[in-house]
Amino acid sequence: MKTALIVLAAGKGTRMNSDLPKVLHPIAGEPMLVHALEAGTMLEPQRTVVVAGHGVEQVRTATLSHDATIKVVEQTEQLGTAHAVAQARDALAGFDGMALVLYGDTPFIRPQTLEDMQAALKQNDVVVLGFEAADPARYGRLVMDGQQLDRIVEFKDASEDERTITLCNSGVVACNADLLFDLIDAVDNKNASEEYYLTDIVGLARGRGLSATAVTCDEWETVGINSRAELARAEGDFQTRARAGLLEDGVTLTAPDTVFLARDTVIGRDTLIEPNVVFGPGVTVESGATIRAFSHLEGCHVSRGSVVGPYARLRPGAELAEHVKVGNFVEIKNAQIAEGAKVNHLSYIGDATIGAQANIGAGTITCNYDGVMKHHTHVGARAFIGSNTMLVAPVSIGSGAMTGSGSVITSDVEPDALALARAPQVEKPGMARKLFDMLKAKKAKQQRGS
Amino acid sequence: MKTALIVLAAGKGTRMNSDLPKVLHPIAGEPMLVHALEAGTMLEPQRTVVVAGHGVEQVRTATLSHDATIKVVEQTEQLGTAHAVAQARDALAGFDGMALVLYGDTPFIRPQTLEDMQAALKQNDVVVLGFEAADPARYGRLVMDGQQLDRIVEFKDASEDERTITLCNSGVVACNADLLFDLIDAVDNKNASEEYYLTDIVGLARGRGLSATAVTCDEWETVGINSRAELARAEGDFQTRARAGLLEDGVTLTAPDTVFLARDTVIGRDTLIEPNVVFGPGVTVESGATIRAFSHLEGCHVSRGSVVGPYARLRPGAELAEHVKVGNFVEIKNAQIAEGAKVNHLSYIGDATIGAQANIGAGTITCNYDGVMKHHTHVGARAFIGSNTMLVAPVSIGSGAMTGSGSVITSDVEPDALALARAPQVEKPGMARKLFDMLKAKKAKQQRGS
Amino acid sequence: MKTALIVLAAGKGTRMNSDLPKVLHPIAGEPMLVHALEAGTMLEPQRTVVVAGHGVEQVRTATLSHDATIKVVEQTEQLGTAHAVAQARDALAGFDGMALVLYGDTPFIRPQTLEDMQAALKQNDVVVLGFEAADPARYGRLVMDGQQLDRIVEFKDASEDERTITLCNSGVVACNADLLFDLIDAVDNKNASEEYYLTDIVGLARGRGLSATAVTCDEWETVGINSRAELARAEGDFQTRARAGLLEDGVTLTAPDTVFLARDTVIGRDTLIEPNVVFGPGVTVESGATIRAFSHLEGCHVSRGSVVGPYARLRPGAELAEHVKVGNFVEIKNAQIAEGAKVNHLSYIGDATIGAQANIGAGTITCNYDGVMKHHTHVGARAFIGSNTMLVAPVSIGSGAMTGSGSVITSDVEPDALALARAPQVEKPGMARKLFDMLKAKKAKQQRGS
Repeated sequence: MKTALIVLAAGKGTRMNSDLPKVLHPIAGEPMLVHALEAGTMLEPQRTVVVAGHGVEQVRTATLSHDATIKVVEQTEQLGTAHAVAQARDALAGFDGMALVLYGDTPFIRPQTLEDMQAALKQNDVVVLGFEAADPARYGRLVMDGQQLDRIVEFKDASEDERTITLCNSGVVACNADLLFDLIDAVDNKNASEEYYLTDIVGLARGRGLSATAVTCDEWETVGINSRAELARAEGDFQTRARAGLLEDGVTLTAPDTVFLARDTVIGRDTLIEPNVVFGPGVTVESGATIRAFSHLEGCHVSRGSVVGPYARLRPGAELAEHVKVGNFVEIKNAQIAEGAKVNHLSYIGDATIGAQANIGAGTITCNYDGVMKHHTHVGARAFIGSNTMLVAPVSIGSGAMTGSGSVITSDVEPDALALARAPQVEKPGMARKLFDMLKAKKAKQQRGS
Repeated sequence: MKTALIVLAAGKGTRMNSDLPKVLHPIAGEPMLVHALEAGTMLEPQRTVVVAGHGVEQVRTATLSHDATIKVVEQTEQLGTAHAVAQARDALAGFDGMALVLYGDTPFIRPQTLEDMQAALKQNDVVVLGFEAADPARYGRLVMDGQQLDRIVEFKDASEDERTITLCNSGVVACNADLLFDLIDAVDNKNASEEYYLTDIVGLARGRGLSATAVTCDEWETVGINSRAELARAEGDFQTRARAGLLEDGVTLTAPDTVFLARDTVIGRDTLIEPNVVFGPGVTVESGATIRAFSHLEGCHVSRGSVVGPYARLRPGAELAEHVKVGNFVEIKNAQIAEGAKVNHLSYIGDATIGAQANIGAGTITCNYDGVMKHHTHVGARAFIGSNTMLVAPVSIGSGAMTGSGSVITSDVEPDALALARAPQVEKPGMARKLFDMLKAKKAKQQRGS
Repeated sequence: MKTALIVLAAGKGTRMNSDLPKVLHPIAGEPMLVHALEAGTMLEPQRTVVVAGHGVEQVRTATLSHDATIKVVEQTEQLGTAHAVAQARDALAGFDGMALVLYGDTPFIRPQTLEDMQAALKQNDVVVLGFEAADPARYGRLVMDGQQLDRIVEFKDASEDERTITLCNSGVVACNADLLFDLIDAVDNKNASEEYYLTDIVGLARGRGLSATAVTCDEWETVGINSRAELARAEGDFQTRARAGLLEDGVTLTAPDTVFLARDTVIGRDTLIEPNVVFGPGVTVESGATIRAFSHLEGCHVSRGSVVGPYARLRPGAELAEHVKVGNFVEIKNAQIAEGAKVNHLSYIGDATIGAQANIGAGTITCNYDGVMKHHTHVGARAFIGSNTMLVAPVSIGSGAMTGSGSVITSDVEPDALALARAPQVEKPGMARKLFDMLKAKKAKQQRGS
């Protein structure tokens, strides 16, 4: 079934107390809007429309940087959810298929749930997503008549009997796009809030003799976020589920509560994750790797048998082949480290390729930036880079070559050659003692003077 | 109303199992005594007296280093709270106004609560601080007669009826100083513990026809600390409240439970704090900054739009202007970093000024210590400090100047000049292979020998 | 009483979803099998036998690397616990004394509990370890007749009356070795699972008119581990108990939940441990030390008054004397740091001795590896190592000597001498500006071209 997504993202989120539009606040390292969009992408939508309002330009920028094919439309006034959906009409002109209405501040709906709605739409004209609420008090109720959804009642309008219903309304709706806009035309704002409610389309559809039904999901999928405290709680709940998933998959987390995962983190079986590790977006770790304490990974790949950390930072573009070691106080960025290579201590490797079995000494720095542009460093297989070598890019060190510690390497080095750039050691006997004595005398004089 | 603080800080805290006096154990990075003193400073007291006993010299040193105008008096024997207060008599000679008795091991009383006591003293001769206890079992009870405090009964002396009272005694008392010492003279130690109890002054005052009342506060404000486990719990409770306050103020804490705050931490709205950040005392962060994971800040200022970390350490005197970047494995101490400057990797910047838009390369170190004294480094605006530059202070790099990577800079550099201190690169063809072969042969020989 | 341990470690642990045998999964930094073995070593056993099955070679390697005197035998088929114990028969040939059957996936039994069993065996032929279960549902019950253990009934075979028993079976058994193997010979597998159960020996013993009894322990001691989630929970429970123990002993943990301890961590009284510290195996910290945030310690010793961190990594063989300071982004490995020495920033000190009061400048690296072998560095007392000094081992710096910053030191330095290896500083006026202009022009040209 052809699918279009309409994602409502216009709200201000006053309780967030923020200049950032609510839907751009991050969960697991990405705007909550991206979570909502990503859930929908599993349906392979032909079109996606984000309806923005408050902070429309920020929302547009964030949306397009996530996926440039998405259409962002503006809702200039916030007159209710039906009015918001109506803003997507032009963007969906000529589209024939299911329109699915999602919310930018409801980031956790599972793709499977959306597929269930898609399937249910084959037999029904309108499909609403509901959930069994542990404490349904404040939610609208879904009044079912067998498999048919009879209507949605707000809590305040519900009878005593209706209030005993625990199946509640998430607001997520699926409907043929043409029918959706048709029904929305008929929605009015004659209610206490003077808003146009999307949920009114169920009653309107039933009034026309059309069919409606409800699909249910877990309550946590429908959680909405309205304050920083709720944001922190949602983040915590996300992490709890993600950690449990990893344990289930055969990953060891020494202290699960101290490991922070992103939406798309992939970690292989029999990987050991020590305490206090942060995964930003875009990380894959193969089976049998070890990520030691206090490591920070973003946009990188760690292959089987590699050991990372403690205190290792892998930045975007870091690719570690098998059995690589990246040790403490090491930063790797946009660099391919080949099999068995070691970068054990206090180094910065950026914009580089490091050959197999190469040994990068402590304090090595790829000088990749000349103040204007970035340049590439190549280190060949089995090369031995002495401690504190400066590799002034662009530069290439041949395979099996060696650099002396403390060398500044500005020209390419041939394979198997030794390169040095080092002043000779000079010793001045007794001079340290003289210097200390002089400095102490100077200090004493200053102190007397003050 | 003129105010004097009397802070009781003489207890040993046997259950702390420590050589450090109990009141000096830290919460949120500062001795709990300092928390008690700081709550009182909002009343702008004319005089403050700390009554010390166990570890009097340590308490004196800590107190005076916090505020040299405080008077520390010694209680040589611990004979009860009334006896402790009596030690402050000489220090308050000639003082006419309210005396407020606080406790060095009760760090959380809010300034507002003390102001409420101050206000109540205008209508009453004695004011006692009480709290509604969730589980009042072990506390003394405040027996009220309308708005008047009739008496304080210890639990063991209370009748069945009195035991149903949930308004409990915190021990904090406000009273005109002269009257306080007068009443204390009448307190005796005819009780099971043979101690002189400060709370007895309520009954004595009422016996003289004077008025007494109670002001109430939240129970958590009155929590006392008697063991390391209670200390850890108090720290945790402090952190929970402080984190909730930040969320309320519009700060995003990705994982609130992993962020540690000090008593005086100030963080602006729309700042993002990633997991695992520690704030020591004296930190202010302006709005719209980002503090990334694993950062550690003490005594520093971070301006709007700056990005700190991951793994950045800002030590006392670090001042970051707007849009500064301090990256991983970087330590900044007593240094002003001007707008837009970058110190991205593996550097130590101490006792320095860094100009606007300057770029400090990876591995740069300000060599600020000559073994005897510390010296200053100045880097001008837009300067480009090459990787692994040693800036041997005192030294000044002109604006727009550049240093070559690996240079040891001992003399000042003119604006727009390039400074180099670098040995030429020498290449010895095939020598790396020869060296490796030689070393391997040597190792093999050693192993045969062993 | 002579003692032999039989530790059952043959299970696959299917629910672990792992290629690593279950008993080798780590808790507090060591395989859970090691915890079980270590509990038993307090009895000073004459012989220890580990019965391995799944992953026998991995279990053998791990066991022997822990203690080479242990005998590892293989159970090729898993036919039940009695069958597993029977595999130890040959290894205990000629042994006369108590055989104690432990489990490699039950890591927390206290040595005191095992001593209680040993004591009870003096009066009884068979001793079983039981525990009062908070929720006994799934456990076998110990049916007592006064002090005598009458029999063990599985829950599914228990009568209504027997199901009210809360004293449950841990599986741990002590018995004279000869008698144990004798009884095991009589065990059959006529039960639903067709397994040979060790617990059947109680009934068999009683049938022969022998005596049996139960010793009880806390329920947490008997917890078994069958999945990664249970492993994480067991780790958490271990940490909770270990942290509480330290608080009790007079250690301050600012945030106990963020400190990770090993089985053998020893920390002295009045030590302050800041948030986010990880202790691997083999660490002792003397009284009055401070371990600051984000530090990572393994196999090291920290003496009285030393300050470690933040962001310090002490690796195996690091030994800090009194009042040593190891600061941020510093790694110490296999090195003795004498009294009062300081390594404050961004350094790697490996395979070295550092003299008393020596000052190691920021960025110092001991170049201990030549690509084939490791070599030693010696720094004398009161030496002053300038920032970014490369100490190319083997090398020795005399007491009171000084090295200039940025020096590569390849030859020994005499006491009190100053050693330099430094190119002279050269300044090219206006050259930085020319370079920047050139680079910007080049970049602009490239961008036009692309």
